[in-house]
Amino acid sequence: MTAFLLAGVQMRPEIGDVDGNIRRSSEWIVKAAGQGAKLVVLPEAVSAGYVFADSAEALRYAEEIPDGPACSAWAALAAEYGLWIVAGLTERSGGRPYNSAVLIGPDGHVGTFRKAHLWNDEKAIYGPNEAGFPVFDTPLGRIGIAICYDAWFPESFRSAALQGADLIVLPSNWVPVPGQPPGVPAMANLMCMTGAHVNQCYIAGVSRVGVERGQEFVGRSLIVGPGGWPIAGPASNDVEELLLAEVDLIGSRAVRHGNPFNQPLADRRPELYVTRGTPDPG
Amino acid sequence: MTAFLLAGVQMRPEIGDVDGNIRRSSEWIVKAAGQGAKLVVLPEAVSAGYVFADSAEALRYAEEIPDGPACSAWAALAAEYGLWIVAGLTERSGGRPYNSAVLIGPDGHVGTFRKAHLWNDEKAIYGPNEAGFPVFDTPLGRIGIAICYDAWFPESFRSAALQGADLIVLPSNWVPVPGQPPGVPAMANLMCMTGAHVNQCYIAGVSRVGVERGQEFVGRSLIVGPGGWPIAGPASNDVEELLLAEVDLIGSRAVRHGNPFNQPLADRRPELYVTRGTPDPG
Repeated sequence: MTAFLLAGVQMRPEIGDVDGNIRRSSEWIVKAAGQGAKLVVLPEAVSAGYVFADSAEALRYAEEIPDGPACSAWAALAAEYGLWIVAGLTERSGGRPYNSAVLIGPDGHVGTFRKAHLWNDEKAIYGPNEAGFPVFDTPLGRIGIAICYDAWFPESFRSAALQGADLIVLPSNWVPVPGQPPGVPAMANLMCMTGAHVNQCYIAGVSRVGVERGQEFVGRSLIVGPGGWPIAGPASNDVEELLLAEVDLIGSRAVRHGNPFNQPLADRRPELYVTRGTPDPG
Repeated sequence: MTAFLLAGVQMRPEIGDVDGNIRRSSEWIVKAAGQGAKLVVLPEAVSAGYVFADSAEALRYAEEIPDGPACSAWAALAAEYGLWIVAGLTERSGGRPYNSAVLIGPDGHVGTFRKAHLWNDEKAIYGPNEAGFPVFDTPLGRIGIAICYDAWFPESFRSAALQGADLIVLPSNWVPVPGQPPGVPAMANLMCMTGAHVNQCYIAGVSRVGVERGQEFVGRSLIVGPGGWPIAGPASNDVEELLLAEVDLIGSRAVRHGNPFNQPLADRRPELYVTRGTPDPG
């Protein structure tokens, strides 16, 4: 039996309130564990909030991995409940802050991903990802990680999928995209749906709600199956919620990669692709 | 004034009836011209139909570019009405059939694109694309081309966008994707919407309707603006229709590439991307 319950926690961190964010994220993790979840995904920047004025302020609330307070609290819960956690946090390393996500298992910290595509003012605040898109081989299956705006670059999900990711988790702080017509899912949801479909993998996009220093976040967390359609969510745009979906990362491999009508990994033509360049805006 | 009217012709070709397909596609082109269209996009494989039994049958109905009957008829209309046409057709070259699309202008044939990702049985029928994703610089703007299943590979749209495509046209024969929930757009539509959004360009996905030798096609043609939202369609799933949208390929360049909140070309991190590999299905 390789199927298990995957949980996404759509919550509202408070900027600068590390203790409170640890307490409330822990409550959600315990709740998810109580429902039987084996992997719990939290949003981006859940340890300390997101809309920092500058790098110095981000650094003030940042923590070292794996011994900082949020990581330690989550690792204790992972050990106690025998589960896995992916959570976004503000990392401190070498005197710089990073917009990172950690993967923690029952035996402690497994790996870290730093946001590869820094959005807007983030470029002035956070250090860069220089390690790409690692895929972590766990007893639940192979897990890739990306953060929020990384989903705007199909190369992110593709990089994880080409390394065998069965599931890509996407801790996010999704913001409104102008022009969304009534009845059409949020653009961030469409990124997860198409990303799962063209990579034959699961994607869990877990976002936050609330307004922070004038920045609105849109929630709409969802878990997408490898067909590209939601299997949990999209959640509301403004309420804290727990999403749950049964997934089978390992047991679905043969089916996911064996459909003759959809082979968007095996049918690739990498020798034809243009991978560099910036169009002339003139 | 660089804005113009873009037309998408959702129609139903008949397999093997080249004369009839030329006649009916020409009627649609004349109709679009009468509405003021400057660029008319037709579906995939519109000259001769699609569900061929084998390579020999495809070859029987194939034509040489640019002097075959469909190309010649479309070129005559482009000259007469002073417009541009992109249409899918069955090409014959060197004794092999190709699933191709032509770009024709008022002065005749401009370029050809051969489907880069052959779907399912197509691999046994058609010759391969060996030229990648050319982008054609026209007085209307820079036009890239992809065909149907190519949209399942984000690399296709990206390759065109990185070469400066303002518009990507996607002649298609879209088929049903299992599991589509009520109220959610077709997966092919989502590919066009996310593709336009993450490449800051227009995308026109023009599909066919009808059933051919048991294969159902789903229509749902649409024209997507650079924000990623439809500006015409999605069309019905079973009726021939003309889609029309005003677009401005050249005049929108500065705005499309100058939005600080959405820079998915300039913010790319190509040095981090994994571009080759096939996951172990075991």
